[in-house]
Amino acid sequence: MSMRTPLCELLGIEHPVLLAPMAGVSGGALAAAVSNAGGLGLIGGGYGDADWLMREFNAAGDARIGVGFITWSLARQPQLLDLALERNPAALMLSFGDFKPFLHQIREAQTKSIVQVQTLEQAREAVDAGVDAIVAQGTEAGGHGGTRATLPFVPAVVDIAQGIPVIAAGGIADGRGLAAALALGGSGVLCGTAFFASNESLASDHAKQAALSGSGDDTERSSVFDLARGLNWPSEWNLRTMRNSFTRQWSGDIAGLRENLAVEQTRFNTASAAGDMDVAAVIVGEAADLIRTKETAQAIVHGMISQAEDRLRFLARYADPIKGT
Amino acid sequence: MSMRTPLCELLGIEHPVLLAPMAGVSGGALAAAVSNAGGLGLIGGGYGDADWLMREFNAAGDARIGVGFITWSLARQPQLLDLALERNPAALMLSFGDFKPFLHQIREAQTKSIVQVQTLEQAREAVDAGVDAIVAQGTEAGGHGGTRATLPFVPAVVDIAQGIPVIAAGGIADGRGLAAALALGGSGVLCGTAFFASNESLASDHAKQAALSGSGDDTERSSVFDLARGLNWPSEWNLRTMRNSFTRQWSGDIAGLRENLAVEQTRFNTASAAGDMDVAAVIVGEAADLIRTKETAQAIVHGMISQAEDRLRFLARYADPIKGT
Ligand SMILES: Cc1cc2nc3c(=O)[nH]c(=O)nc-3n(C[C@H](O)[C@H](O)[C@H](O)COP(=O)(O)O)c2cc1C
Ligand SMILES: Cc1cc2nc3c(=O)[nH]c(=O)nc-3n(C[C@H](O)[C@H](O)[C@H](O)COP(=O)(O)O)c2cc1C
Repeated sequence: MSMRTPLCELLGIEHPVLLAPMAGVSGGALAAAVSNAGGLGLIGGGYGDADWLMREFNAAGDARIGVGFITWSLARQPQLLDLALERNPAALMLSFGDFKPFLHQIREAQTKSIVQVQTLEQAREAVDAGVDAIVAQGTEAGGHGGTRATLPFVPAVVDIAQGIPVIAAGGIADGRGLAAALALGGSGVLCGTAFFASNESLASDHAKQAALSGSGDDTERSSVFDLARGLNWPSEWNLRTMRNSFTRQWSGDIAGLRENLAVEQTRFNTASAAGDMDVAAVIVGEAADLIRTKETAQAIVHGMISQAEDRLRFLARYADPIKGT
Repeated sequence: MSMRTPLCELLGIEHPVLLAPMAGVSGGALAAAVSNAGGLGLIGGGYGDADWLMREFNAAGDARIGVGFITWSLARQPQLLDLALERNPAALMLSFGDFKPFLHQIREAQTKSIVQVQTLEQAREAVDAGVDAIVAQGTEAGGHGGTRATLPFVPAVVDIAQGIPVIAAGGIADGRGLAAALALGGSGVLCGTAFFASNESLASDHAKQAALSGSGDDTERSSVFDLARGLNWPSEWNLRTMRNSFTRQWSGDIAGLRENLAVEQTRFNTASAAGDMDVAAVIVGEAADLIRTKETAQAIVHGMISQAEDRLRFLARYADPIKGT
């Protein structure tokens, strides 16, 4: 097994598969498991809880991992960046907001900078700022995101990236998606949904079960869960989750949800604590179709790599007129 | 050059590239050019104008082409199917509506049936009905469509297709997209945006120019142009176009547009006649980023094939540990 792309060289990893820094889901054990399988695990720094962050760095043990932050949230407590960089992460990823104020410090720490973008305009900014790698995220992604879709977005970003490795994110959960990302000119993939229901994920068992039995037809982007969680997200991005009673009631009536917010937040919190997934959030993307069993992160990484290799070996016949006919 | 997938065998074509049956854009000359280049051109039967249809079949001359209809519209004037089948098309494609009532007649005529779907549920229906090929269309597509995105949708459809060839549509406009579609398990691609600004396309020069200079960041799905055109589309599907003054004014205020409909329809019609693309519709998808020059359809098909072959040849190194290191 060997699929060493330029991204692998940049990050010093064996397989071009990154674990997305999923807030509350990508803890140290999951990040370590992905790194130990030859990819790179990123702890989900999320909305910034220093104790949580230190605990999860510790949980990763000796594994060589990275970390990702939600940029607009990091801007409110920039000291978290110091804490993270002290742990010598292999990469620091920033998403959703102005990453430029943080780049200098990341570089000084000799950590690789990865920036996740949702528009070509943001990609251009990242190129101009000289980041080490760019994640081109499509709207099919689980969690927060924008409106561009992965398949046409990745090659468009590659065309302006001036050789900076582009990582595809959104909708990739098996070796076919990985092979497609490379075909598009991507240098690797960043996966969230694929690892959401893994053994090592911090998602609850109820949430994992709902994700495994859910279909991509049944996900949608909205702001209902951000409101329910009291998170004041910029309107540029919203959250893809499974549909359930809660989204069916409120995603078409955001004003109504705002009016009933206190009551609905209580209902949401109670349901989340009780594992009632008909009201609580199951944060996965359209790739829900492609995940079917609870497995170890290692099995997921290795399965992706070997399926991608099989696919590329099969497709080689189309590149060679002699074998092909 | 040879990329003969099962879809090629099914349709008797050399390259697995289909021209989408774009209403008002895919006429006989364009369909013939794509077929003559080794793909399969589909005339855009659209909303059903028998004279237009016959003229465009004639314009295709001897070329072996197919035709596509908007299903809910065909249901209102089913005699168009008789007319089309009399011309012995290589394939008949149905999109947007209940295709089942028409399948028997298509089979009787020994024409291949292709059904375009936007959800897994529709894909299951198509499989159960025994169609010859399924187009899995992602939301990034130009023109009408749904909400699923191409990259995760195609493999999910392949997984339920029981061996029926799956054609990827939405966001594919170069060889990278074609290679990615095959990596996903697709058997070929159906492209609209890629051919919108081709020499042979029936789009106006103003529209072609706007498409070539536009960006995928600047497209959006809405129903404004269907209202402006007086087309009563089912709410399940809406139209992806470039953004312009007209969409910026109305896409967030559909009720307002309905109130001012007569005036706005006049304004829209005047602008369309005058080639004022700030009000008229430029119907392309996110792949707008990937089209840059006005070329012949043949150059587009051959460019896609040779770029896809290059890409697959390059990627073969990742499938073979010996070459890969
Ligand atoms: C449960 C979940 C939580 C996420 N949280 C974050 C986050 O905190 N920060 C971030 O940058 N991205 C987050 N994302 C988005 C990922 O970075 C990534 O873009 C996405 O998972 C890729 O699409 P996929 O889910 O189809 O693999 C999250 C995704 C999921 C599924
Ligand atoms: C200008 C235009 C008109 C279209 N008209 C039709 C149509 O009449 N019937 C149909 O089935 N699909 C139509 N489509 C959608 C295509 O079938 C196809 O799904 C789409 O073009 C694929 O995405 P792409 O534009 O990114 O290539 C149209 C697309 C465009 C761009």
